[in-house]
Amino acid sequence: MTTTEELLTTLKRILPQDQVSVNQTILEQHSRDESYHTPSLPDIVVFPKTTEEVSKIMKLASQFKVPVIPFGRGTSLEGHVIPYNKGITIDFSLMNKVLEIREHDFLVRVQPGVTRTQLNKELKRYGLFFSVDPGADATLGGMAATNASGTTSVKYGVMRDQVRDLEVVLADGTVIHTGNMAAKSSSGLHLNGLFVGSEGTLGCFTELTLRVYGIPEYILAARASFPTVHDAVSAVVGILSAGIPIARVELVDESSMKQVNLFSDTDYQEKPTLFLEFHGNEAGLKQDVEFMKEIVADCQCEGIVFETDQAALNRLWEARHNLAYAYIHGYPGKKMMITDVCLPISELAGAIEHARKELNKHGLTGGIVGHVGDGNFHTILMIDMNNLEEISKADEFNESIVLYALERGGTCTGEHGVGVGKQKYQEKEHGKALQVMEKIKLALDPENLLNPNKIMKL
Amino acid sequence: MTTTEELLTTLKRILPQDQVSVNQTILEQHSRDESYHTPSLPDIVVFPKTTEEVSKIMKLASQFKVPVIPFGRGTSLEGHVIPYNKGITIDFSLMNKVLEIREHDFLVRVQPGVTRTQLNKELKRYGLFFSVDPGADATLGGMAATNASGTTSVKYGVMRDQVRDLEVVLADGTVIHTGNMAAKSSSGLHLNGLFVGSEGTLGCFTELTLRVYGIPEYILAARASFPTVHDAVSAVVGILSAGIPIARVELVDESSMKQVNLFSDTDYQEKPTLFLEFHGNEAGLKQDVEFMKEIVADCQCEGIVFETDQAALNRLWEARHNLAYAYIHGYPGKKMMITDVCLPISELAGAIEHARKELNKHGLTGGIVGHVGDGNFHTILMIDMNNLEEISKADEFNESIVLYALERGGTCTGEHGVGVGKQKYQEKEHGKALQVMEKIKLALDPENLLNPNKIMKL
Repeated sequence: MTTTEELLTTLKRILPQDQVSVNQTILEQHSRDESYHTPSLPDIVVFPKTTEEVSKIMKLASQFKVPVIPFGRGTSLEGHVIPYNKGITIDFSLMNKVLEIREHDFLVRVQPGVTRTQLNKELKRYGLFFSVDPGADATLGGMAATNASGTTSVKYGVMRDQVRDLEVVLADGTVIHTGNMAAKSSSGLHLNGLFVGSEGTLGCFTELTLRVYGIPEYILAARASFPTVHDAVSAVVGILSAGIPIARVELVDESSMKQVNLFSDTDYQEKPTLFLEFHGNEAGLKQDVEFMKEIVADCQCEGIVFETDQAALNRLWEARHNLAYAYIHGYPGKKMMITDVCLPISELAGAIEHARKELNKHGLTGGIVGHVGDGNFHTILMIDMNNLEEISKADEFNESIVLYALERGGTCTGEHGVGVGKQKYQEKEHGKALQVMEKIKLALDPENLLNPNKIMKL
Repeated sequence: MTTTEELLTTLKRILPQDQVSVNQTILEQHSRDESYHTPSLPDIVVFPKTTEEVSKIMKLASQFKVPVIPFGRGTSLEGHVIPYNKGITIDFSLMNKVLEIREHDFLVRVQPGVTRTQLNKELKRYGLFFSVDPGADATLGGMAATNASGTTSVKYGVMRDQVRDLEVVLADGTVIHTGNMAAKSSSGLHLNGLFVGSEGTLGCFTELTLRVYGIPEYILAARASFPTVHDAVSAVVGILSAGIPIARVELVDESSMKQVNLFSDTDYQEKPTLFLEFHGNEAGLKQDVEFMKEIVADCQCEGIVFETDQAALNRLWEARHNLAYAYIHGYPGKKMMITDVCLPISELAGAIEHARKELNKHGLTGGIVGHVGDGNFHTILMIDMNNLEEISKADEFNESIVLYALERGGTCTGEHGVGVGKQKYQEKEHGKALQVMEKIKLALDPENLLNPNKIMKL
């Protein structure tokens, strides 16, 4: 028997038969994510239902010295879940229960396979919502693993800000809790923050306690178009400086507005556009609107439309959310590469202009969208993976975007994570701090079995 | 020559003479903090002016295998800065410059010895403020080391939420940066979060990049008294559930209101009282006030007074802030012991009632105050350190408060940190996660030289 066969036999002894698979289709489903990174098959896929089962799997993997890759819904964008070193993929789709809603504490306890839309559906009846919205209907375990964020983080923060506690299965199968249910704590080293964003390299999350929010009394959305991206970003800086509490602010450039109109059957102006949302009370927001009209006018705004009607709000955000899929539909056969830098906001307009120039210089097709309140923007490129020249141009383009951001105090990834795609920039970004990260990884996973060679190569 | 003499001679070679001291008064000033914990002298105190000097000191300490204790202003409350294992205390008071204010990025870069009032004075001319307010005029380095928070964290978050980057000198003298200037990042393991709250056990902070906020357009404060603590807490839960954005909410119980009146020459009602503050725009807050009046009336509020005048606001918060000093003045010769648990807010009223009962049961004198929006409260005890029975009763009392919180998903310290005072609860609170913390500490400081035996004993 090979090691894999022996491992399979042992796994089938500790788990029910239907929770262990080497079926080719299943293996293929777990060989890729939504990115352009080359797929690679795991040896075995398991579907645990309990923390205890995850712990048993980890102990076995540790005994067989076989890699383990936690898997949510495969919506990652930098190859995080691709098993380049083979091994066992743990699919958390059967651990998908909302375990507890503590409405007066604004807390929920969930299993890692719960998706954000599933959670929001359950929360609605309590007048609550979960704030992090990365676009894709990812699992909460996966979102914690990459420190996901998205359109609402300018007001509510990123995934790390929502995590009060994680139940984690470590490399040797030990189960720990990284936090508690208190709103704040100064007790011990801050493991919550460390494990969030660790991309499966430090442990597998088997339970999450998350902060949720009351659905705002009043929501106001706006769509504002500008002659240039620079004017649009200036308007955002103006609104933020005025202390107007933005809940979302998305920039969509001219090319991307074209894709929106094509895919979503809208007839929005094809100009650099801000999609904005404000949460608060009616009187307060009415006062803010008046102030905001002055600010955007000063930035050459060519038209601002406000919406408070729920259907119109949904239409607007659906258009924004579907943008990635609009590109995928618009370029059949091509793969998506998305840049993800984040900079201090004073550097954002320059960075976006630089990205547009680099796109043109490389003769690449792509659109720019941004969570501009955070200084985070994406360039969406559609690449023909059979065209080596195009791939190489896209890589060069990505690198020029990253270097521009790093030179100005930014980061190579604002929300997508490192996976394999951003590994080559880790040393440049973190310097000697990378060695600290390596020491921590080795202290907790000395055999390098947990999602090996993601974030950093050891 | 003894090792200490040799170390002293070597230190005087690498630092200017006046930056190295073994003067008895200086040693005594660095032997204690503001707590009841027994003082202990360091061997040597140094006053570096640059990161390079700190790095040299660390390299030397590492070579001599001598402990190093970073020291801000000594306002810690759990013995964090007391050099129980002797060694070198690094006093950061000469590294007290605000290095850069990036007003459009809402960021500042400061040296660790800058105090929060010093920073706020410099920020005021830009219309900005730094939000974390623990009461004491601590240094920002110290506040980051303990993950300090205070009255405003219900709206703006704790110290950890403000730190974008730390420059840290590690045990071997290496200088790293834990973050960058971007508002969010998913790059690498999250060292910012890990180092904040590490109480000097992982490295010395030599520079901090911090988030700051625009001074709110409109500030409204209120003082509301209630027949019972339970009613006051219910009112807070009601206000939070209604989504009214509280910037501060402090509960002061009956006994503490007496101390406030005695010390601050006020004539506030001596009843459980909430001190509240709201930041926003005028129209929005006016709408919130009307709603709030209904909520507090439902909770038997016996009187609510609103203030918008700056002088009245200052008077109100000064009274609250001076409370700890009011106790110290009220009980000359006694030392202060403060409990610091934090619980899910639904457990808070019960926890405060429990604390009051335990105070009475143990026949101790003390007042209760709380950052109730976070579920964090303090019992301030004044103890005669010559009375062993009183000390033992206070210890028993503290333990009963901590255990009550831990059994209900809380933490033994919401904002003061572990130091030596909360060490005995670390295993109970963190379980096997404590071993993960120990592994991280040993991976980064294998000789256990950085503030040894704080947080955890190795």
